[in-house]
Amino acid sequence: MKVKIAVNGYGTIGKRVADAILKQPDMELIGVAKAKPDYAALRAVSLGIPLYVPKDKLSMFQEKGITVAGTIEDMLSKADVVVDALPGGKGVSMKQLYDEYGVKQIYQGGEKASVAERSFSTLCNYEETLGANSLRVVSCNTTGLLRLLCTLRRLYTIESVRVTLIRRAADPKEVKKGPVNAIKLNPPKLPSHHGEDVKTVIGDIDIMTAAVAVPTTLMHVHQVNIRFSERASRDKIIDALTTTPRIIVVNTSLTGIQSTAELSEALRDTGRPRSDMPELAIFEESVTTQGKELMLFQAVHQESIVTPENIDAIRAVTRLAATSDETIRITDETLGLKKGLYFIAGGVG
Amino acid sequence: MKVKIAVNGYGTIGKRVADAILKQPDMELIGVAKAKPDYAALRAVSLGIPLYVPKDKLSMFQEKGITVAGTIEDMLSKADVVVDALPGGKGVSMKQLYDEYGVKQIYQGGEKASVAERSFSTLCNYEETLGANSLRVVSCNTTGLLRLLCTLRRLYTIESVRVTLIRRAADPKEVKKGPVNAIKLNPPKLPSHHGEDVKTVIGDIDIMTAAVAVPTTLMHVHQVNIRFSERASRDKIIDALTTTPRIIVVNTSLTGIQSTAELSEALRDTGRPRSDMPELAIFEESVTTQGKELMLFQAVHQESIVTPENIDAIRAVTRLAATSDETIRITDETLGLKKGLYFIAGGVG
Repeated sequence: MKVKIAVNGYGTIGKRVADAILKQPDMELIGVAKAKPDYAALRAVSLGIPLYVPKDKLSMFQEKGITVAGTIEDMLSKADVVVDALPGGKGVSMKQLYDEYGVKQIYQGGEKASVAERSFSTLCNYEETLGANSLRVVSCNTTGLLRLLCTLRRLYTIESVRVTLIRRAADPKEVKKGPVNAIKLNPPKLPSHHGEDVKTVIGDIDIMTAAVAVPTTLMHVHQVNIRFSERASRDKIIDALTTTPRIIVVNTSLTGIQSTAELSEALRDTGRPRSDMPELAIFEESVTTQGKELMLFQAVHQESIVTPENIDAIRAVTRLAATSDETIRITDETLGLKKGLYFIAGGVG
Repeated sequence: MKVKIAVNGYGTIGKRVADAILKQPDMELIGVAKAKPDYAALRAVSLGIPLYVPKDKLSMFQEKGITVAGTIEDMLSKADVVVDALPGGKGVSMKQLYDEYGVKQIYQGGEKASVAERSFSTLCNYEETLGANSLRVVSCNTTGLLRLLCTLRRLYTIESVRVTLIRRAADPKEVKKGPVNAIKLNPPKLPSHHGEDVKTVIGDIDIMTAAVAVPTTLMHVHQVNIRFSERASRDKIIDALTTTPRIIVVNTSLTGIQSTAELSEALRDTGRPRSDMPELAIFEESVTTQGKELMLFQAVHQESIVTPENIDAIRAVTRLAATSDETIRITDETLGLKKGLYFIAGGVG
């Protein structure tokens, strides 16, 4: 029998998670909930996904002639697990309702860590979170950092991590956000919260992060500096990065890709849904070691990187898979996630 | 008697250096040279600055009715010092001509370090360069880094420097450069050349830099991480930063400034020529110490930060001022350069 999943919020994350659930052999999408009768609502209905709405919005949808399956409460009464994909900070206000209906809960990184029993990242703590009642999938930037750190800490003891995050200003669909022509300190006070967020998953580690927002919509870029407790081998690191799931390694001299624009264009050529990149992309030429230190650049696709982790989090709370290897195998196969050296012909697609 | 200066190249740097020379009590601007008969050439003529052109371009200027004072050779024959402000990499091809005319030479950071006897940054090595025949004023990013490092190394021994440079994609006047919507690794291979360029001025130091280019025209931002050989005091560092010439400290809670756009707008309000910021701007709230480490954000106005250093370099090669303190006093007073905590009313302007 399949586990029944409801998705509350059908925006950037919600629609991707819903699409991903439809591809899982062990999950059934009960429906999605949305508060605004817009093109995304029309899309859900046209795909045959039951659409649920807040009680007080029923008439607004009906006036527009959008077929509604019921209220959010109706949806929750049929679900085993709810994926909360409401805008950041709004999930916590739903917690009481979710608890009343006895559904297990997956929240997003826009919520405070206290919203859930544990913060979650598949490569780092899947096994520790089995059977939890609620999990919080950390944000896109934190997910990108954790994929890297949990890969590297299998090789070496990490002494310190210093990261500069160059963040995209807005997602492609966002028309009101900026900056349009500026570098914005995000925030001016250092360190930024991203380092603290990493600790919610892997515990105490010496990490300090700084972030700026810049006028682009495609991806975040991280410049990562790590110090290990021993001399680092570049070969060993490249070997780990090219064999870890959900990490792709981009070689610039091979591909000519040296920016998020070229990487995005290559993704568009693959025919993937929405040209998404749920993998973490690491630029091979940037991977540089000096003594105990490692420097590199990585790119994070802000809209899609957390999709596979949401699917894994569902398996964790429901014990659908006993190990991270098992859930990664199913998720990555169904979603077409790649690993290894990136190349266009027959590569990531 | 005033020292006679020629400026070869009248673009972003050349026009600013020429304007600055006109304000110096100990310098005379012999003329500027330009190869293209455009609005900048017309401006020079309208200001009464003698305009010199390459021999083979004389007719092109005459056809447009632009009054020309002679050839570049004519200009060099009257000068004691030439400031070469040609596009990056083109200065070296003029070196032989400059030598033939026996003029001392100031080059820009776009040239290789080997173009001149020494690379130059006022706060770091003014006294070491007195009487040199040629100097190279390092680039905007390197100048910004060196102002910071040479201020801090008076307080502590610097063990290592790690910097992420978030570079503006193009200057405001540049219509062909990008990216428009991307973060570009600049370059993908680490470390970037900026760290090596710092060493051309202050010698061997453990510095590694990484750079990206982003879609903005206003300023570069540096995220700087420094490790000292002893515990660092934030108070001591803030005190040094607020009392060093050519460094302004921006307090975000006081001013609301948390981006290069807001800082640029504040500069526009001051009435400065071109709304330039030849000072290095350091964001006070970002200045964070942890043990021996220091993190901070700083902003570099790419078009104007090297202007004062060019003026000082002229004084160094001609021995017009015996110490950095002396040249800084004259340059900063004539150009209206500020130091200390930035505030709009009566502050930087």
